[in-house]
Amino acid sequence: MTSNPTQIGNPQDDWLQSLRWAGDHLELLDQRQLPEEIVYLDLTTSEEVWEAIRRLKVRGAPAIGIAAAFGLYLAMRSFPPVAETGGPDQFRQELLRQADYLATSRPTAVNLFWALDRMKKRAERLLREMEIHTGESAGGKTNGGLGGQAVPDLEAVKLALLDEALQIQSEDEETNRRIGEHALALLEDGMGVLTHCNAGGLATAKYGTALAPLYLAKERGMDLKVFADETRPVLQGARLTAFELQQAGVDVTLICDNMAGMVMSKGWVQAVIVGTDRVAANGDVANKIGTYSVAVLAKAHGIPFYVACPLSTVDLSMSSGQEIPIEERDELEITEGFGKRTAPRGIKVYNPAFDVTPHEYVTAIITEKGVVRPPYAENLPKLFED
Amino acid sequence: MTSNPTQIGNPQDDWLQSLRWAGDHLELLDQRQLPEEIVYLDLTTSEEVWEAIRRLKVRGAPAIGIAAAFGLYLAMRSFPPVAETGGPDQFRQELLRQADYLATSRPTAVNLFWALDRMKKRAERLLREMEIHTGESAGGKTNGGLGGQAVPDLEAVKLALLDEALQIQSEDEETNRRIGEHALALLEDGMGVLTHCNAGGLATAKYGTALAPLYLAKERGMDLKVFADETRPVLQGARLTAFELQQAGVDVTLICDNMAGMVMSKGWVQAVIVGTDRVAANGDVANKIGTYSVAVLAKAHGIPFYVACPLSTVDLSMSSGQEIPIEERDELEITEGFGKRTAPRGIKVYNPAFDVTPHEYVTAIITEKGVVRPPYAENLPKLFED
Repeated sequence: MTSNPTQIGNPQDDWLQSLRWAGDHLELLDQRQLPEEIVYLDLTTSEEVWEAIRRLKVRGAPAIGIAAAFGLYLAMRSFPPVAETGGPDQFRQELLRQADYLATSRPTAVNLFWALDRMKKRAERLLREMEIHTGESAGGKTNGGLGGQAVPDLEAVKLALLDEALQIQSEDEETNRRIGEHALALLEDGMGVLTHCNAGGLATAKYGTALAPLYLAKERGMDLKVFADETRPVLQGARLTAFELQQAGVDVTLICDNMAGMVMSKGWVQAVIVGTDRVAANGDVANKIGTYSVAVLAKAHGIPFYVACPLSTVDLSMSSGQEIPIEERDELEITEGFGKRTAPRGIKVYNPAFDVTPHEYVTAIITEKGVVRPPYAENLPKLFED
Repeated sequence: MTSNPTQIGNPQDDWLQSLRWAGDHLELLDQRQLPEEIVYLDLTTSEEVWEAIRRLKVRGAPAIGIAAAFGLYLAMRSFPPVAETGGPDQFRQELLRQADYLATSRPTAVNLFWALDRMKKRAERLLREMEIHTGESAGGKTNGGLGGQAVPDLEAVKLALLDEALQIQSEDEETNRRIGEHALALLEDGMGVLTHCNAGGLATAKYGTALAPLYLAKERGMDLKVFADETRPVLQGARLTAFELQQAGVDVTLICDNMAGMVMSKGWVQAVIVGTDRVAANGDVANKIGTYSVAVLAKAHGIPFYVACPLSTVDLSMSSGQEIPIEERDELEITEGFGKRTAPRGIKVYNPAFDVTPHEYVTAIITEKGVVRPPYAENLPKLFED
């Protein structure tokens, strides 16, 4: 367990963080109010966390998972002592109930389930250890979790839950830092770097994936000139990427998506780096709509196209990007995305949320375990070997 | 002079027109209210026309020229008879004064000056003819335009002005129809066609340039499936192209600019067709920002990339597109283009209005005189030979 939980996510930290543990509650940056307002919400209950995830106040797979983990701790921390409840089984039941509840906040977010699962396992592991110990010290045998004779220290379990949430957060930060290190080795002082959508600190514990090398470069006094595609229709590039890089003092210029080609043709871009939602076994990459266009433009201009992601994003069970399902989203995002109607009523709209960039456009995939280059079908599995 | 001015631009015509002469006044579609409202303004004075051009109620180089031409007629039609004014020189002076005034409505619009110049020449030609005839019939010699003895029929000059405005309009329509015919020959039933920005009927008398073949196809029962890029930042594709094609019953699907690559990769597009603001002697093409990206994407997918424009857009004095100046526009178009702030304050923005597509990406240039293919430096001058 972490001796000083507030050390991670210290509110005094001037780094803009999507979430930070403030000793007794979760501080969560309300991303819906960005870039106009920087508002941290104080969340003290699992209901508040559920609401924050549901209402997209927090977004980005890793950040959602971390929020849910803290939410589960917040749900359990006031669980009464065993003396009042009759045993750890009630604790277990409540833990499962709360985890199921939090899982409904964003039913399609894989990281959410993964984080909640990890929390449940940590609690169960400790509960079982305690039951064994309690049973042994009483000279009897464990009751297999049925409670009664064994009296586990539920306070210790609660602290273990907090510790697990903090670990999920710090591991994510560490993963991203490593991605950043590997990616940074591919960049040079003075380069122009173009990115699409937001694969930044706001979507993760810290650093982000695609943006991680940009932050590390800034920390080390390396000058990069970043171009951020605004990323229609939802403008994550304008609202989030431009915002978080600006906050960190990175030299960033906002452009419309259709300007990427011109910016490249002017020789202002030496590398493209983007995140991804899923990498297939052959190196095909699914990411925010528009990524494929950027990849084609990069290739036409001889600019390397890098994809940054944690290993958990690589899905070897999927042989190619053709298998990745593409969600189509509400046409209102295009026809009145800004509260004002900007297209004729009744117009047909095509609004895919993602596109797939075939592996032949991907110069390298950068993970926390290093940089993978083609042939991906051969080299991606090596990441999972040890 | 046209025997029945209302024949052209008949208000009963169900074709959506940017402008139409309604017998005694100009009806002008207020494009600022599109696509939410279809409002025709009744303009009866040159001041109202000036205002309409200035406030962008009418846009598109040909449409602006036509509006100004009618504006000049409206300015002159109530000019008093010679008996009251002393002669045609007062008419000439007023004509020049009004033309100069209308020219200030949009000082960078070349078509505006061209149309006003044509109007002035038509009036002057008739005035001189009348003076000669009047002089001859009186047995004297022309007074060189100083007025007095000769009494030209100013009513006939006014009608000539109206006729010239109607001719400018109908010639533009005819030019576009011819562009449409030549372009249509390159398309086939069932094809998908992608366009960027608005080079449509709203910018011209009728048909537009890039959109002309789509209208002709519709008239002839040929099925095309059109994809309209919304065209950030000002959304001419969403507000105008999608709108006017929808009004005409053309099958049109609106997409964000960054979706063009995906739509092409799905095999939905067999031709790209766009307009242009200027074609250099080597075939380089300046057009709305984002056109270059579309051209690169088209080439990568083996899709022909066509540029449609009247001959007047080809500027042989410019050897290449490198010489074409690119205007940078207000960053607010990107940061709060929808009446709502969508980017952080103080963010750096790059907002070029146009980009240049090098000739090697241009499959053909379609003019009213036919389809020109590479080598453009050799083939474009041939258009001007007869």
